[in-house]
Amino acid sequence: MTISPAAPAFDKPARPDAEALAAVTLALTRQFGNRTVTSQAVREQHGHTLTWVANQPPDVVVYPETTEEVATIVRLCAIHRVPMIPFGTGTSLEGHVNAPFGGVSIDTSLMKRVVAVHAEDLDCVVEPGVTRKMLNEHLRDQGLFFPIDPGADASLGGMASTRASGTNAVRYGTMKDNVLSITAVLPNGEIVKTARRARKSSAGYDLTRLLIGAEGTLGVITELTLRLHGIPEAVSAGVCSFPSIKAACDVTIATIQSGLPVARIELADAAQMRAINIYSKLSLPEQPMLFVEFHGTHAGVREQAERFGEIAAEYGGGAFEWATKPEDRTRLWQARHDAYWAAHALRPGAKSLSTDVCVPISRLAECVEDTQADIAATGLLAPIVGHVGDGNFHVLPLFDADDPDEVAKVSAFVERIVERALAMEGTCSGEHGIGQKKMKYLPMEHPPATLDAMWAIKRALDPLNIMNPGKILPS
Amino acid sequence: MTISPAAPAFDKPARPDAEALAAVTLALTRQFGNRTVTSQAVREQHGHTLTWVANQPPDVVVYPETTEEVATIVRLCAIHRVPMIPFGTGTSLEGHVNAPFGGVSIDTSLMKRVVAVHAEDLDCVVEPGVTRKMLNEHLRDQGLFFPIDPGADASLGGMASTRASGTNAVRYGTMKDNVLSITAVLPNGEIVKTARRARKSSAGYDLTRLLIGAEGTLGVITELTLRLHGIPEAVSAGVCSFPSIKAACDVTIATIQSGLPVARIELADAAQMRAINIYSKLSLPEQPMLFVEFHGTHAGVREQAERFGEIAAEYGGGAFEWATKPEDRTRLWQARHDAYWAAHALRPGAKSLSTDVCVPISRLAECVEDTQADIAATGLLAPIVGHVGDGNFHVLPLFDADDPDEVAKVSAFVERIVERALAMEGTCSGEHGIGQKKMKYLPMEHPPATLDAMWAIKRALDPLNIMNPGKILPS
Repeated sequence: MTISPAAPAFDKPARPDAEALAAVTLALTRQFGNRTVTSQAVREQHGHTLTWVANQPPDVVVYPETTEEVATIVRLCAIHRVPMIPFGTGTSLEGHVNAPFGGVSIDTSLMKRVVAVHAEDLDCVVEPGVTRKMLNEHLRDQGLFFPIDPGADASLGGMASTRASGTNAVRYGTMKDNVLSITAVLPNGEIVKTARRARKSSAGYDLTRLLIGAEGTLGVITELTLRLHGIPEAVSAGVCSFPSIKAACDVTIATIQSGLPVARIELADAAQMRAINIYSKLSLPEQPMLFVEFHGTHAGVREQAERFGEIAAEYGGGAFEWATKPEDRTRLWQARHDAYWAAHALRPGAKSLSTDVCVPISRLAECVEDTQADIAATGLLAPIVGHVGDGNFHVLPLFDADDPDEVAKVSAFVERIVERALAMEGTCSGEHGIGQKKMKYLPMEHPPATLDAMWAIKRALDPLNIMNPGKILPS
Repeated sequence: MTISPAAPAFDKPARPDAEALAAVTLALTRQFGNRTVTSQAVREQHGHTLTWVANQPPDVVVYPETTEEVATIVRLCAIHRVPMIPFGTGTSLEGHVNAPFGGVSIDTSLMKRVVAVHAEDLDCVVEPGVTRKMLNEHLRDQGLFFPIDPGADASLGGMASTRASGTNAVRYGTMKDNVLSITAVLPNGEIVKTARRARKSSAGYDLTRLLIGAEGTLGVITELTLRLHGIPEAVSAGVCSFPSIKAACDVTIATIQSGLPVARIELADAAQMRAINIYSKLSLPEQPMLFVEFHGTHAGVREQAERFGEIAAEYGGGAFEWATKPEDRTRLWQARHDAYWAAHALRPGAKSLSTDVCVPISRLAECVEDTQADIAATGLLAPIVGHVGDGNFHVLPLFDADDPDEVAKVSAFVERIVERALAMEGTCSGEHGIGQKKMKYLPMEHPPATLDAMWAIKRALDPLNIMNPGKILPS
């Protein structure tokens, strides 16, 4: 920032000094009793486990039950300059909940009330520890559902924080599109509510979207108002094999361009299909496969499935099998549902790493094919699945985490995937977020002035740099 | 913000001193020749005209042609601390483009190139001066369209800045949902690009959404990447009268809750229908009327229209007339298209003011009916139209702008509408924005900590308070 007064004091993140930490721990223990935990096991559980990022446990874990309790914790940490790490279910994939500078993990798992469901308004108010499956269980009787479905049964606070999406995003959008309002405690301990319950508003800066995807670096989310959708009257699902990734991607483009309101359109590549066959003792064609789902009226989903079948046939698709009965749909989609575990069947005992990039859909076939060529040249086992309607795909390299050579090879491979996506006007993360592990790619994705602006916002809202420090923005 | 270091220097907005203004004017004239204009007529045209807000002309109007030229202008103004006001078509409604502290109006009307259309990706890149009609004209041959349609043929930069929506928002979302990326010049003269061209991303703070709705107070938008949609294969449109506002709103709720993907659902109240009859010499029932439109396949839009007809009948709707041929659809919707001009037929020569609030849809009937009672009690002529699928409605009081009593009466009435919407968990603006005229309502809508956070962001990105000062945030 060139034409600005001197930036305000902004701390480099640091471990709290022992005295500050002791004071905070004591105060938390006095106030929250056995909801303040310092055991090694619980602390390690709150550092990172789901990737190869080393576990960096917090010093203390505290389990607040209300927004006001979160505010108390945040104020206490701010006074003593102790880092805080908001924690949902710990299922994020890029080291988001690690505590590189120690401090206090604020675990929201006790904040799991569905506060209100407004069926007429198609919205609900939830605490951040409610998981997506808990919420959908709660809503089912009312004929409503919340569509965002990352792989894990993540907490809604965490899903907002990582701007999560999943298989339904092509039809229903991502977390950014399905949150109406957020209550959060800012790093200074103040409680903000970002918006009213109206479905749209032009009243001031969009703090809702600023907190969504901020990965807990700008505050702790303590309540969310979510948009809901009616459970569709009918659902049709289908699967179809293709001679090439290109053909499968061209069908995806044609489907979306034709205005077919596909609810899900998922790709599995040949390696993934081979894994499925091993895992489930099946003999599906080991070719790229599309899994599709349509939501609507009975007549509507039939028409949509038939249209899709016609498009698939035009591009050389194999037999398009589709169904509307729940048990038949489940059978058709089983291979997709099993994808993650099936992949591990390719190399039992191996560690895996789920990468995540997203490119404009016109570049998707090229990006996936180049990645497959890279996999072959590198000699990796790495099946691919993709939310292809959005141009988003995941590669799951399987490797021996104890073999430094393999780790180095996979690391370089992941870096090449990101570079490939960026070279195609894509992003280094479609839905997993940046955390610790993708920080180095952010300057490759955004020009320096854009990162400067993000830093300016971080400094403005967290001048002490104590809210999930060492994440997203590389220093 | 309690626990923060001292806030950075932040200027109260002020008129530039004469020397600074002269220096900027001279430099702009040297660089941009006759694209720098200081004539009274052009300056006044760039102050505000579309509401009763007094015209506050800028000192200079400049017409840049490129992002780099905008950056040059912004840096020059920043050095001399001269206020800047980004300008699109001047069709905003709350005093957004007025220049209360003088300064330089940056008119983007020469930046009107459609830079690229990526049909396969359903996106395009445009300069900010492209209007929505220009864009749709450009796209038509490719079977694509951009759905956001505020009343005016506004510029896309301006539409992003006010977080505009319109009649299609219930199906296609608002500007917040249809912009993928923004290039902008920040108040310090740096050029940011907020995102890549991927359809979704979790890579860093959502600067795209931060600039959308910021009304030019955080920077000048110089390029936008927009999401496009395929022109639907078929469209059906229909109209239906209802015995009460309540019945029309209940039908709207039932329609949306049933998952019918209505593309447009617009309400006109009895006063608006009376205006239509006067204006167009018709004899439509002077009862609340819903105008609906469905997009999809031929079979799909027929099914949707029939379903809607069934729902309408359940709630006591009159004959539901619908059509799919363009000329028949136009005839059915003519009354809605003429609403604005027809309203003025109720009182020829009167000035009007378009208010804008939005409430949760379950409260809409109550909010509209209470407003009608208020209109009757106050003795106003004020027809109502609404984008009711979103819970958004406009009231158009007609009044004599030269009669201070009438102006006071209308002013108090508008204030009561806002208070009513806020009391129902709604917002003081669904789509017009805050500008100057609604600043006083922002503290009624948001708690102090939320406004503090907005101010913190404003201070961080515009520490000199020279980018469209005196808008949105009340000081």
